[in-house]
Amino acid sequence: RSGEMAKSTQLVDNEVFRAYATYAAIVLLKMMLMSVVTAYFRITRKAFVNPEDTASFGKGDSAKKYLRTDPDVERVRRGHLNDLENIVPFVGIGLLYALSGPDLSTALLHFRIFTGARILHTFAYLIPLPQPSRGLSWAVGYAVTFSMAYKVLKTVLFL
Amino acid sequence: RSGEMAKSTQLVDNEVFRAYATYAAIVLLKMMLMSVVTAYFRITRKAFVNPEDTASFGKGDSAKKYLRTDPDVERVRRGHLNDLENIVPFVGIGLLYALSGPDLSTALLHFRIFTGARILHTFAYLIPLPQPSRGLSWAVGYAVTFSMAYKVLKTVLFL
Amino acid sequence: RSGEMAKSTQLVDNEVFRAYATYAAIVLLKMMLMSVVTAYFRITRKAFVNPEDTASFGKGDSAKKYLRTDPDVERVRRGHLNDLENIVPFVGIGLLYALSGPDLSTALLHFRIFTGARILHTFAYLIPLPQPSRGLSWAVGYAVTFSMAYKVLKTVLFL
Repeated sequence: RSGEMAKSTQLVDNEVFRAYATYAAIVLLKMMLMSVVTAYFRITRKAFVNPEDTASFGKGDSAKKYLRTDPDVERVRRGHLNDLENIVPFVGIGLLYALSGPDLSTALLHFRIFTGARILHTFAYLIPLPQPSRGLSWAVGYAVTFSMAYKVLKTVLFL
Repeated sequence: RSGEMAKSTQLVDNEVFRAYATYAAIVLLKMMLMSVVTAYFRITRKAFVNPEDTASFGKGDSAKKYLRTDPDVERVRRGHLNDLENIVPFVGIGLLYALSGPDLSTALLHFRIFTGARILHTFAYLIPLPQPSRGLSWAVGYAVTFSMAYKVLKTVLFL
Repeated sequence: RSGEMAKSTQLVDNEVFRAYATYAAIVLLKMMLMSVVTAYFRITRKAFVNPEDTASFGKGDSAKKYLRTDPDVERVRRGHLNDLENIVPFVGIGLLYALSGPDLSTALLHFRIFTGARILHTFAYLIPLPQPSRGLSWAVGYAVTFSMAYKVLKTVLFL
């Protein structure tokens, strides 16, 4: 049983893998926070999509008027979807990258830049900041993930 | 070559990892089923979004009337997106958690509660059940993933 | 330290894992390309959703007219969401499958068919090809992921 334990934790003994796990957890938590921000705007803007969510406002037309879209809610939802489209590939490709034996300093550079870029992207989307803030922060995160994918394919390619 | 085989299966010898793999597969399959439910409602409600999907109903206006949104279809699609927003972080953070050396019983508790909560969430969304059924089942799954992320960051933190 | 390195790269020494990493990186990159295709259609069709994205077209009504939906943009976005719904489960279940000790030839068959089916699906969606091209390519990828999940659950089941 202690042998099993040792096996299960050996990845965690590796510094590149620990760095990956740290930054992957941070960006996934950041993505999850978008759900809370959406709920916050739905409640404060009184803008819901499911009839059962407005039942506490009464019945009939008094509740129906809260079944509507709100620009702030839609903006957060677009930011959340953009996170799914970008953070999920980072987490997947980042795992393969961490296992492909990169230098620790190079790996940290990738993880830190991606994480910073996605946090900036969220602020740029939600405030919103004038373009090209959002576009650039998206492009930086995208380029980091591409760079990791290139390293993965160069190291492991087996078609 | 048998050495390689041994290496590849050692994670599978670990009980925490086997539990993770079991529950991750179950919730991912549950998420995938939402595609089939969407297709079922699109076909039975005759509510499509792509013109090429209505070609079998004839040409022109006779087919165009089936290019419409339907409340049941949209409800399933929202449930599917909610799964993407919650099950995908569970799978990513759960993997890191399983590799961070938790107690088997603690890990099983996390995996089982999350899986139960997400199955409840699906029923609460599709039937639909009155609130706060859906809200609570969402919150329970969310809290489980947060708890795993906390353990991961406490164990591996490397910034 | 060299011991750590050896541990970190041992998964990469396994041919099934290398094949998994290769195809997972390819389909994740394909999914990421959908962002670029969306941006291309948004710019060429002048169809944006965020007011800050149309600021370069001037102020007031001259810019507002570009805040609109476009059928080509919406089509790419649906293809992108379909990738999230299908490629993400493949990457998650595929990892567990690769660690469950399948034959190399069986694993390659799964990974190659899935990757081919999803590339076909993208062309079927974007051109678009008449049905059932898109439906069949979706179903083939879905069946491959299901088959891998079955192998995972048969190998590791620990409830």
